Amino acid sequence: MSSRPVPPGPAYRRLSVEERRGQLIATAQALFARSVPEEVSLDDVAREAGVSRPLVYRYFPGGKQQLYEAALISSADELELCFAVTESGALSLRLAAGLDHYLAFVDQHGEGFTALLKGGSVVETNRTTAIVDRVRRAAATQVLRHMRVPEPSAPLRLVVRTWITTVEAASLIWLDEEKELPLDELRDWLVDQFVAQLVVTAGRDKTTARFLRAAAEFEEPGGRIDRLFERTIAMMTPAGM
Amino acid sequence: MSSRPVPPGPAYRRLSVEERRGQLIATAQALFARSVPEEVSLDDVAREAGVSRPLVYRYFPGGKQQLYEAALISSADELELCFAVTESGALSLRLAAGLDHYLAFVDQHGEGFTALLKGGSVVETNRTTAIVDRVRRAAATQVLRHMRVPEPSAPLRLVVRTWITTVEAASLIWLDEEKELPLDELRDWLVDQFVAQLVVTAGRDKTTARFLRAAAEFEEPGGRIDRLFERTIAMMTPAGM
Repeated sequence: MSSRPVPPGPAYRRLSVEERRGQLIATAQALFARSVPEEVSLDDVAREAGVSRPLVYRYFPGGKQQLYEAALISSADELELCFAVTESGALSLRLAAGLDHYLAFVDQHGEGFTALLKGGSVVETNRTTAIVDRVRRAAATQVLRHMRVPEPSAPLRLVVRTWITTVEAASLIWLDEEKELPLDELRDWLVDQFVAQLVVTAGRDKTTARFLRAAAEFEEPGGRIDRLFERTIAMMTPAGM
Repeated sequence: MSSRPVPPGPAYRRLSVEERRGQLIATAQALFARSVPEEVSLDDVAREAGVSRPLVYRYFPGGKQQLYEAALISSADELELCFAVTESGALSLRLAAGLDHYLAFVDQHGEGFTALLKGGSVVETNRTTAIVDRVRRAAATQVLRHMRVPEPSAPLRLVVRTWITTVEAASLIWLDEEKELPLDELRDWLVDQFVAQLVVTAGRDKTTARFLRAAAEFEEPGGRIDRLFERTIAMMTPAGM
């Protein structure tokens, strides 16, 4: 999975094994992005890639299931890179940058992404579920690394993991509601939700409170977090209520 | 699905068709609660229910798949009743009461619940996924009915739906971490999370803000919500940070 998919070259150039494999996976990814797995056939993949069906089988003897898993692993690798953003500066900005990558992926892989996360398709198995779980876990690990909490408490881990689920659920709802909300509003809402979940948890958990104090020092004064806090406090004081 | 499962009666009493069906479903539910679907056989169900294998097949000619779906529908019916709590009084108390029902169910159906929500098991299909989705949608509808917002805005709907996902994810994590956190702490954390998500959203959405103002009037002065707001404001003011 290490080589990046390449666009099909002119017919006279012979693709290397890795290039051909990458091309077939990229073609499959594009098809799975537009249709649910049930509606994608190996013939479609062969036609779209401009190769013969036997050639697809030579690379993927396990047929559609194997090709689907390969496409999924490739997507998972891409998703895991979402939060590989710069590790310095305000956390809220890093979070927003990671979400921008993630949401662009969701935007691009709509149908396939929905089918996969909703499960129940003919090609879902324990293995595909495990791949999706790997992405979730990797996302949680990356977020925690950005937070630089050496020993996250149980409540802090719970916040991070449930926030990942919130991101996933919000993406599915966004696709389901035909991408009505502008992506940057969805991103800001997700950042706000994470901060809110942390703040509420900090009220009962010392590790989370310590993390928030440390993180606040890197936020821009009067910036996104300060404005969020202002709005939120206004909502919670009797005059605002 | 209308009759409740009954415990197996003494051998000399003939169960009615509905009673027998209910007994087999209850037996299957109990087995699926202790083991992943792959590890439950029709023989296990027959043995546990004290009946013959052919008798199980007479009621469920589709075999394990059909029995699994029946058990699932029965669980779904039960889950949908969770938020059928009194429709008066403070919302935070009603939410807590609904969560108590839900978490008791999770506690009781541990393994089966995990297998189902994680998907990828041999018995998951589009149909079982649809049943789980039905429960999610029903939960969102019930929560919105309690909130008495005639026309919920898109952000308010998003909060309710993603909170349902948070509840689900937190339950899975709770099971995964071997029920370490006391259930009432998990419940309180989930109530707090919902309020926090609403407050943050209210800062950008008028419908949510109006709802919060209306709901605040039914909360006990100095009660759970006031205390949550106090703690939260303290976390967000420079002195608290």
